[in-house]
Amino acid sequence: MHAEMRHDPLQRRWVIIAPERGIRPTDYRRADEDIDGFDPFAEGNESETTSEIFAIRAPGSKKNGPGWQLRVVPNKFPAFRVEGDLDRRGNGIYDKMNGVGAHELVIETPSRYDDLPQLDDDHIYNLGVTYRDRIIDLFRDRRLKYVILFRNHGKAAGASLSHPHTQIAAMTVTPMQVAMELQAARDHYSDKNRCLLCDMLTQELDQRDRLVQVTDRFVAFCPYASRFNFETWIMPRFHQHDFRRMTDKDIREFMYLMRDVLTRIKAALDDPPYNFTLVTAPNSDTIDPRPAQWSTLELDWHWRLMILPRLGNLAGFEFGTGFHINSTPPEQAAELLRAVEL
Amino acid sequence: MHAEMRHDPLQRRWVIIAPERGIRPTDYRRADEDIDGFDPFAEGNESETTSEIFAIRAPGSKKNGPGWQLRVVPNKFPAFRVEGDLDRRGNGIYDKMNGVGAHELVIETPSRYDDLPQLDDDHIYNLGVTYRDRIIDLFRDRRLKYVILFRNHGKAAGASLSHPHTQIAAMTVTPMQVAMELQAARDHYSDKNRCLLCDMLTQELDQRDRLVQVTDRFVAFCPYASRFNFETWIMPRFHQHDFRRMTDKDIREFMYLMRDVLTRIKAALDDPPYNFTLVTAPNSDTIDPRPAQWSTLELDWHWRLMILPRLGNLAGFEFGTGFHINSTPPEQAAELLRAVEL
Repeated sequence: MHAEMRHDPLQRRWVIIAPERGIRPTDYRRADEDIDGFDPFAEGNESETTSEIFAIRAPGSKKNGPGWQLRVVPNKFPAFRVEGDLDRRGNGIYDKMNGVGAHELVIETPSRYDDLPQLDDDHIYNLGVTYRDRIIDLFRDRRLKYVILFRNHGKAAGASLSHPHTQIAAMTVTPMQVAMELQAARDHYSDKNRCLLCDMLTQELDQRDRLVQVTDRFVAFCPYASRFNFETWIMPRFHQHDFRRMTDKDIREFMYLMRDVLTRIKAALDDPPYNFTLVTAPNSDTIDPRPAQWSTLELDWHWRLMILPRLGNLAGFEFGTGFHINSTPPEQAAELLRAVEL
Repeated sequence: MHAEMRHDPLQRRWVIIAPERGIRPTDYRRADEDIDGFDPFAEGNESETTSEIFAIRAPGSKKNGPGWQLRVVPNKFPAFRVEGDLDRRGNGIYDKMNGVGAHELVIETPSRYDDLPQLDDDHIYNLGVTYRDRIIDLFRDRRLKYVILFRNHGKAAGASLSHPHTQIAAMTVTPMQVAMELQAARDHYSDKNRCLLCDMLTQELDQRDRLVQVTDRFVAFCPYASRFNFETWIMPRFHQHDFRRMTDKDIREFMYLMRDVLTRIKAALDDPPYNFTLVTAPNSDTIDPRPAQWSTLELDWHWRLMILPRLGNLAGFEFGTGFHINSTPPEQAAELLRAVEL
């Protein structure tokens, strides 16, 4: 069975059913999983991955051989596949469709021991350019409506290998959570003719108590209604709706700031597990008619990176209500992160 | 700082900021936390808890002394407090209010070694009656709009003590996730004059491949769009919107079925961490005007218990999109749970 997406009329959200082949019931205890065993992403083990889509390589080195700084490969165990039709079907009152899309891995470094905070200036810049350019390339497939770029650090944050890597998944639907945020931004813009996230930034820069770090063009802050302990968002201070629009110069400044924040989190919290996810704009050039409410996306949307440390375990309360409980006021979190000496 | 609830106009959801006093940054690594240390919930340690609200006790035993089968106490570290005004305020474009509500613990057994699947018939029946009666009592406070009853089993599922206990939290707002489901059920009813969840049950009982166990009055099944591996819902086969309406007889049948399902999950998956949460109807007798769309709650809503095994770790994908990835097709999960020999 290939991955499929399922929807029920009660929860009104898609779930991806992506069976892992050959898994036995006793294999489900992920807590026991070793993420530091054999490293298929290490330099020299290129034959363990699928063939590379892109790489930054030393002159003269060969595709799928050693001599690279970073590589992009299709995920061997994808939640989505490029092949196949969308094939939307009903099943009584339920709906399903094929898991059409793309699922790529950015292997960030040749060695598992070089984590993002340790990368040198050019390396981290190259990583940012790769993020942008892969999104640009994926959105050339006009079936794809949305792309999520995310990174899982540490087993408790869902990493299945400790080797530093980012995942990029592109899909044929816009997730409800994102659609709701797009709608909120649109409503705000309709009311006030201003971008909601620009307004949030203005307030953050004014109140200052949730700021972690500010640069010329970007800001890192702990959001007012943080879901997670030490949650930190990074956003452009200028209005920009789509990460694809980032210039090389802005990418450099943004990636340095990301490295700075991740270094602070690592130092302040003893290298905690975390996720980060880039929330950018949906594809404005899809096959399906563009929903009317997105016609002003360029004016009312604003991309952001969310860094989500995983210091507690989500429990029944969160899954029953959708409410999160956070035990660190974001003002305290920001103060602690600001105080880290780098 | 007491707990407060915060809302931002982008995510449009409330987050509970509930600082734990005296916590230091190094304390955040919950992974290292020992949930099997000193047991404040054990019989004989009653002075370690707040004063009991309710207990089932041997004749002649004293309140807050030994000799009980189960006890209900206010949570010592509550996300919500009964005291205080709602105190809704703005902060620029953000909103906040006090964490007014109630947060109780049902200590299910005198010993941490008697987990729910081992409870005898009368004990588990008493637990179910306690669930119902606490909800009835809490909803007498007309400030409270919603109640969530949940249980965290195992550290990875958010339990901070291994002693079996259930939590009941009552709050002054209906969580967005629940409000959206209520709306979905309402929309379905408007269209078809039938309860959405009754329709789902009809399809499940017809297709049979996701059924785990069926009794005269209740059904346990793995939902079509399960978010979690081996997710299982238990629902009344008859239409009932509010758990408070459960008769003693139905409680007995329901709790036996819950015990049966939890025993199957424990046996099939090597005692996995899990959450369960009861999704019942909001308070129909609150101080605030009842929203118009809930006027048909009694006709269009249907309560359920969701059991959510925690066999994988949620990662950046889930938090960035709200989509869940589930690696076990619910048909396979149900087959495996049905096959367990009790």
